[in-house]
Amino acid sequence: MAGIADVARAAGVSKATASRALTGTGYVSERTRDRVLEAAASLDYVASTTAVSLATGRTQNIGVVMPYISRWFFSEVLEGIQDSLLRHGYDLTLYDARPGTEGRTRVFEDFLARKRFDGLIAVGLEPSDNEFDRLLALGCPVVSVVGQNGSTSVVALDDEHAARRATEHLIELGHTRIAFLGGGGPHWAHVDHTRLLGYEATMKDAALPPSHVFSPVTMPGGYAAAADLLGDSRRRPTAIVGTCDEVAIGAIIAARRLGLHVPSSLSVVGIDNHEYAEMFSLTTLEQSPHAQGTQAADMMLRQLREPDAPIVNLRLQATLIVRNSTAPPPGVPSVAVGVGAAPWA
Amino acid sequence: MAGIADVARAAGVSKATASRALTGTGYVSERTRDRVLEAAASLDYVASTTAVSLATGRTQNIGVVMPYISRWFFSEVLEGIQDSLLRHGYDLTLYDARPGTEGRTRVFEDFLARKRFDGLIAVGLEPSDNEFDRLLALGCPVVSVVGQNGSTSVVALDDEHAARRATEHLIELGHTRIAFLGGGGPHWAHVDHTRLLGYEATMKDAALPPSHVFSPVTMPGGYAAAADLLGDSRRRPTAIVGTCDEVAIGAIIAARRLGLHVPSSLSVVGIDNHEYAEMFSLTTLEQSPHAQGTQAADMMLRQLREPDAPIVNLRLQATLIVRNSTAPPPGVPSVAVGVGAAPWA
Repeated sequence: MAGIADVARAAGVSKATASRALTGTGYVSERTRDRVLEAAASLDYVASTTAVSLATGRTQNIGVVMPYISRWFFSEVLEGIQDSLLRHGYDLTLYDARPGTEGRTRVFEDFLARKRFDGLIAVGLEPSDNEFDRLLALGCPVVSVVGQNGSTSVVALDDEHAARRATEHLIELGHTRIAFLGGGGPHWAHVDHTRLLGYEATMKDAALPPSHVFSPVTMPGGYAAAADLLGDSRRRPTAIVGTCDEVAIGAIIAARRLGLHVPSSLSVVGIDNHEYAEMFSLTTLEQSPHAQGTQAADMMLRQLREPDAPIVNLRLQATLIVRNSTAPPPGVPSVAVGVGAAPWA
Repeated sequence: MAGIADVARAAGVSKATASRALTGTGYVSERTRDRVLEAAASLDYVASTTAVSLATGRTQNIGVVMPYISRWFFSEVLEGIQDSLLRHGYDLTLYDARPGTEGRTRVFEDFLARKRFDGLIAVGLEPSDNEFDRLLALGCPVVSVVGQNGSTSVVALDDEHAARRATEHLIELGHTRIAFLGGGGPHWAHVDHTRLLGYEATMKDAALPPSHVFSPVTMPGGYAAAADLLGDSRRRPTAIVGTCDEVAIGAIIAARRLGLHVPSSLSVVGIDNHEYAEMFSLTTLEQSPHAQGTQAADMMLRQLREPDAPIVNLRLQATLIVRNSTAPPPGVPSVAVGVGAAPWA
């Protein structure tokens, strides 16, 4: 079996250069890298982990820690991270850290401390102060997807902006009774709280009363909470902002079950552009968690190559996709609303 | 920081025994293991990977290779595997091997060959002959979730049985025009093909004509295929067996969109008991992918402890959950059907 020395010889470079080219650590010109990769391919060279680790002190492995694996957003981010790491020859070790579980304690106290990775990507982790100290004590690069903290690089949606745009869209259509659905409870995620603040600020700017309806951030959760809310005609809103598409789709299903037509009796808008959004004709703010995962992994690999590079804070803006789940409220013709309510008219 | 020698001393055992107890490799009595774990906890001992690897030749890491991360079944299995591995102190390295992608080739040719794990769990992988040879050449234990091959241990649903029960349920209700929705195309998974065979055999036993409608195995896929099928009243069935709940739920949404009432105009049954099944009142055959993941991981850890243990083939039977998506076909009163069609009446 060919070794790194054979690859270096065939490519006409030093062993150190061949190692840098094969592992993606440190600088080599693109031409040199291509030459080394060609030589490796022609020799059927497979890097031995142990040899690479001994030569570089690197594990060629990135840790990914996230609170939920099976939710749409998280699994899409995970696929995006994996795509980038596979392309660059890195392994991915996964740590599941559901809030409030014994497993999460174990991950922070035992697993991360083993440091079997060169860097750690934290997805929607929302660490406690104690957990955050442990992350920083690892002494390796950390990149966050979703999050705010200024001491690590972050890729995240501008959540307040997304909720603002969703709410403005409904106000522009003429709605005044607009509820925000989702979040609350002991594990209320920061992202849902930020979206609620964006909604509340927009309602305040328009001198409209805000109304937050608690709901688990899942489709069945949104379904149950919306069924409860819509079942009572006195407190029924004419429009709902779902904190994410899954909650919004749950609300659409609940409305249909109650015989309320969407959008003529009820408008619903979400945030995500989930893979089911089109099937439900859901108006939504589009983000791409897959792309966020890829960006986070690319950011991590750059940090490993250039340890002194500055921290990056990548804030993404979602764009509005109007489908058939939003319309003017009952009794308001659409043209009049367009003229009356839009500040730019 | 405490080392393995300190833990061994505090527990009053040899270093080798302490290592076996902490890593789960090889036999130690339960009492000894408890004593070692207590000593480790009281000393705040964190196993150093390098030290453990050098002592045991083991990586304390299990590889998981699966074709889709973000589909419900796969992410649930992944959570189940992770639950068990975390409990036993093992890391999980994830390899994404989508059929027909360059990434899959890379996983088989480069990543698996590095062998950074003690064993590999393959979830719904359906390896080609060439890929299967590479898996076996790794020379480490392999456990499959979903699958048939006799040379590795397997945890899997009895897919033919599940499809038989779904079809029988509809026949017992009096349906004769029953379509099977899902599967077909270049990446037609073996599991969906097996379910189709179960459906076809049941239809044949009842002297009814089978009808397979192609569809991607996703909710939007089932929605589009069902919209097409149900839109044409001449070829419209009175009942649909979805190859899984996502496809079945897509069919329910399509029926509602077309104004067809479920179950009075159309019965739909799925396989899974997906987290959305209850919200759609879906009659289905229940399986638990989370439990299958945990069982596969436990099986793997047992194989690592007892390398000579025989191969296990664990075949699980799904149980029917009747909800409100199935009823007798239009025009057939339910009592008459119960008496007439059920062979046990």
